[in-house]
Amino acid sequence: MSVVDICLRVERLNNIDLLKKIADKVYSAVKPLLGTKKAGKIVGSGFGGDKTALIDEVAEETVIRHLKRHHLACTFIGEERGVENLSSKPEFYLMVDAVDGTTNAIRGLRFVSTSLALSSSNSLGGIEAAVVMDLSDGGIYEAAKGEGARYDGKKIRTSDASVLDEAVVGVDFSRVPDAVEKIVPLVRAAKSVRSLGSAALEICHVASGCLDAYVDLRGKLRTVDIAAAMLIVEEAGGVFLQPDGASFGNYPLTELNRFSVIASANKQIHGKIASLISGL
Amino acid sequence: MSVVDICLRVERLNNIDLLKKIADKVYSAVKPLLGTKKAGKIVGSGFGGDKTALIDEVAEETVIRHLKRHHLACTFIGEERGVENLSSKPEFYLMVDAVDGTTNAIRGLRFVSTSLALSSSNSLGGIEAAVVMDLSDGGIYEAAKGEGARYDGKKIRTSDASVLDEAVVGVDFSRVPDAVEKIVPLVRAAKSVRSLGSAALEICHVASGCLDAYVDLRGKLRTVDIAAAMLIVEEAGGVFLQPDGASFGNYPLTELNRFSVIASANKQIHGKIASLISGL
Repeated sequence: MSVVDICLRVERLNNIDLLKKIADKVYSAVKPLLGTKKAGKIVGSGFGGDKTALIDEVAEETVIRHLKRHHLACTFIGEERGVENLSSKPEFYLMVDAVDGTTNAIRGLRFVSTSLALSSSNSLGGIEAAVVMDLSDGGIYEAAKGEGARYDGKKIRTSDASVLDEAVVGVDFSRVPDAVEKIVPLVRAAKSVRSLGSAALEICHVASGCLDAYVDLRGKLRTVDIAAAMLIVEEAGGVFLQPDGASFGNYPLTELNRFSVIASANKQIHGKIASLISGL
Repeated sequence: MSVVDICLRVERLNNIDLLKKIADKVYSAVKPLLGTKKAGKIVGSGFGGDKTALIDEVAEETVIRHLKRHHLACTFIGEERGVENLSSKPEFYLMVDAVDGTTNAIRGLRFVSTSLALSSSNSLGGIEAAVVMDLSDGGIYEAAKGEGARYDGKKIRTSDASVLDEAVVGVDFSRVPDAVEKIVPLVRAAKSVRSLGSAALEICHVASGCLDAYVDLRGKLRTVDIAAAMLIVEEAGGVFLQPDGASFGNYPLTELNRFSVIASANKQIHGKIASLISGL
């Protein structure tokens, strides 16, 4: 390993540590609000036009405060605030979905996460470090580019599932009526279907082998929703593509785009899912 | 309160304590198996013809051992063994689904429960005490007839949700293709849909107000699956009926029946769900 390689590796591990510190702050801020009415109070509307609940605002402001206090010169891209340069010379991009699974968080369903991704360039393919924290217990999914993925420090790999009738598949079809019909062939073919309510955490469950795939055909997931989980599932050996097979690599972090996604444990299961939903 | 009433109350509380002790034993036996390949090894087939995984067998045998060791004279009704008199003069009926959410347990998805219900008569309406333990963390949902429902010792109540477009609804449509079409109108009408993979625990989430309803139209749930959760959701103020409005009260505990169920937070939301799926 050359000195340059070693330096790059140290930098990536430092980046992961930074994201973990931020996630810890969010965890402490959000914990007392989980399952409370107060958490769901509408306090405004976010970057993409969705309503902002108090818990979303508290979590995102916690991130912003940490970044400012430590004079971290970045371009912040958050679910609520949108794009904001925290320095005249930003050194990196930080993608923040401070609470992914807001409905679960408000209702007290314990499947909710914070999703953080860091990149030195303005593209999804440039993400170098990612952390998704399970806010119910502080468990951490992490990945640094080229270094694999981990859950609570231990390496994780996607499953070797290759047939749908033995597969457990996460889906989301809430709030978009057409999405129900689109997903029916997959629901019929899979062994079991789950709908857990936090896309980032469900994609991390594909990374750890708990799920064999996660499919959301609603065309609603934003860049901030998927940035961290994409690196984690890819570093765990998974496949992360749009339903038409297109990759996400070239999309700019600073643009508001909305996607449908298929996160799969491997190429075989991806192929089977893609062929089931093609032509829809 | 008369002396008879006090004696009855003490007996019910004693019954809850017995169920909690059994749940603790299951928790200890099952914990090391959660998320392991070993847990999923098929070791036979159960009472209703479903395959028995090792984790199901280990959990149910743990219950049987506890009952025998303490010479508890009951008619045992379990998912795997079916009906078994543990004494020539059984004094009560014990309904046991030792692991509800076997797929989750095997795959490491942390939504799995043990479900225990006690009755002095051979009918679902006679259930007097019920415990559902969340096997991911040992959290306990409990109810004694007429005494309300509790989660970890604190009284719980169902939600006051009255309109579907603000409701979070749990559903199960895995493995039964027709069930997907049946549930589509509800999925379109609800704010959010979850599919979490343990019916007993999902019905308890209706009891605690985390979900507004749980709907399973597959006609697959057995008496052992619903016995405990039914009492818990009813004691929390909820409504637990078949899709045609029929109650479960008269079904014998010792017969193998399979049901579709609608567990609702209250009469209003039940009426809205029932009218959406009627005529299917």
